[in-house]
Amino acid sequence: MQGTMIYGSRDIRLEERPEPKIEKPTDAILRLSATCICGSDLWPYRGIQPITQPTTMGHEYCGIVEEVGNDVKNVKRGQFVVGSFATSDNSCPHCRYGYQSSCMQREFMNAAQAPYLRVPLADGTLVATDEVPSQEMIPSLLATSDVLGTGWFAADAANVKPGGTVVVVGDGAVGLLGVLSAKQMGAERIIAMSRHVSRQKLAKAFGATDIVAERGDEGITRIKELTKRIGADSVLECVGTQESMMQAIQCTRPGGFVSYVGVPHGIEFKGEQLFYAHVHLHGGPAPVRRFLPKLISLVLEEKINPGKVFDLTLPLAQVAEGYKAMDERRAIKTLLKV
Amino acid sequence: MQGTMIYGSRDIRLEERPEPKIEKPTDAILRLSATCICGSDLWPYRGIQPITQPTTMGHEYCGIVEEVGNDVKNVKRGQFVVGSFATSDNSCPHCRYGYQSSCMQREFMNAAQAPYLRVPLADGTLVATDEVPSQEMIPSLLATSDVLGTGWFAADAANVKPGGTVVVVGDGAVGLLGVLSAKQMGAERIIAMSRHVSRQKLAKAFGATDIVAERGDEGITRIKELTKRIGADSVLECVGTQESMMQAIQCTRPGGFVSYVGVPHGIEFKGEQLFYAHVHLHGGPAPVRRFLPKLISLVLEEKINPGKVFDLTLPLAQVAEGYKAMDERRAIKTLLKV
Repeated sequence: MQGTMIYGSRDIRLEERPEPKIEKPTDAILRLSATCICGSDLWPYRGIQPITQPTTMGHEYCGIVEEVGNDVKNVKRGQFVVGSFATSDNSCPHCRYGYQSSCMQREFMNAAQAPYLRVPLADGTLVATDEVPSQEMIPSLLATSDVLGTGWFAADAANVKPGGTVVVVGDGAVGLLGVLSAKQMGAERIIAMSRHVSRQKLAKAFGATDIVAERGDEGITRIKELTKRIGADSVLECVGTQESMMQAIQCTRPGGFVSYVGVPHGIEFKGEQLFYAHVHLHGGPAPVRRFLPKLISLVLEEKINPGKVFDLTLPLAQVAEGYKAMDERRAIKTLLKV
Repeated sequence: MQGTMIYGSRDIRLEERPEPKIEKPTDAILRLSATCICGSDLWPYRGIQPITQPTTMGHEYCGIVEEVGNDVKNVKRGQFVVGSFATSDNSCPHCRYGYQSSCMQREFMNAAQAPYLRVPLADGTLVATDEVPSQEMIPSLLATSDVLGTGWFAADAANVKPGGTVVVVGDGAVGLLGVLSAKQMGAERIIAMSRHVSRQKLAKAFGATDIVAERGDEGITRIKELTKRIGADSVLECVGTQESMMQAIQCTRPGGFVSYVGVPHGIEFKGEQLFYAHVHLHGGPAPVRRFLPKLISLVLEEKINPGKVFDLTLPLAQVAEGYKAMDERRAIKTLLKV
């Protein structure tokens, strides 16, 4: 089969790869319905996360179960399933505590930009739908696998509550779906920080009540004005840089909540600054598995349409162009047809 | 009157000071029943927090209202009151959100190691008891003013719940009262990290179920053993150094809660480490005012005896010796008779 590899900065190649096989009795093999490119894939693409050897790419996936190992009980051949970027047995103490992305047996998926995928710990990782969904549902179901699950975790970790005031820092796909998640959780006011007209539009479609185009100190001042000098109850940091994190903390009211869901690159928190900011801080790899059943239901009931973040669809053969378009911010997120 | 001043590192002097007067109509003047020395007073004492000019000291207090300004309505002359180290109007949005120590009108108290004290924002800062309490109650009531309120906040911010597993890093007075607070909140297992026999004993008296004397990596290993490799649900960081903070984070289970309540000195959090640790982090100046009514009741009902942390009592005239004994760890906490 043809699978995606990264060889170095801005060097994405589709090349012949062996088809995945069952390696352990707890594995499943999926024939993917679609896959996509994640904002986090841009870190190695941009050379910020160094690549030392050619590496497979992709960790967002949904598809049809092709084969299962002997120990797999919860999913069977022919079912449509969605899984998370982090595998989980869904039974260890960390999983039972709701932190499946820190499962004691966790592996990070990294070969999903391909037609077939091996999923370890299939029983605890995959969630099956009752029926095979229609083709139009695929983008939104694919979104639940990571980008929506991560945006949802951002809102959950920032303690978004009915009636609350929420700020979302970052207008990438995760930030935009953080807006959607906050809306679903009943936030009264959702302020999206975005400078791009097309993304502002999508943020509003997802439920943003206000847009702040300013950044840094000007952005913070604007948020303070919009919140009667109080600051927001919940702030979702969906970028992962020092600047965006400091902006997030300073937009938050004392006693408020800051979440961060992208791998922080070079971020350092000064203890004293955090102490006097008086905020709650929580983040990490999103435990998407915790939210998957609910998110899949919301999609199938057509209550949400997170697939709208895919504003570029390409065949897998053009995966390199998919990366390029996202890197140049011509696309929010690229869906790859496999 | 004679009041306490710091002139520089290890230079504490009692000297003639003007008696405080009402300066604003919202002020009250207290005749203190007792005062004490805080662990945080040791930072300037040890020269870690530089002193640029002679400065008054002390921020823990309780006593009898001597005089009130014209706008004060909630407390009156002759009442016994306790207040927090941070003044608060108890009506601004931050106060109503439970973060009175970030009150929009906040001032930090700093002249309480003296017989008389001016308290700004008296209505929002002070809590009066129904009757003037007996002399034996004074140490425990004084403790509610900061050290117990801070230990309580540590437990609250670390989400201590009935049945939970708690680790307390630090065996100073705040850590010990963190143990007491976790016990009151129903924790099933409370592991105190302490190397000092007398402090271990007090920790046990306050409710610790286990003592871990090891520190650093050995301490973390020991906690993992005691928690079946899971880590603790709640970890209270009650020291304020880089080493103790890293120890706290690594003792916490993914999805667990770390609180920190001492001003962090030189602490830096690496974003990536915090991200993969997957912990909740919350701390800051304890909003003692939020807890005062409850804590005062617990003391008056003799359900708790936090005054036990005072293992040295000196007349105010010997305040310098009080600092020295705490600096040399001969005393956990010094009560000063005024």
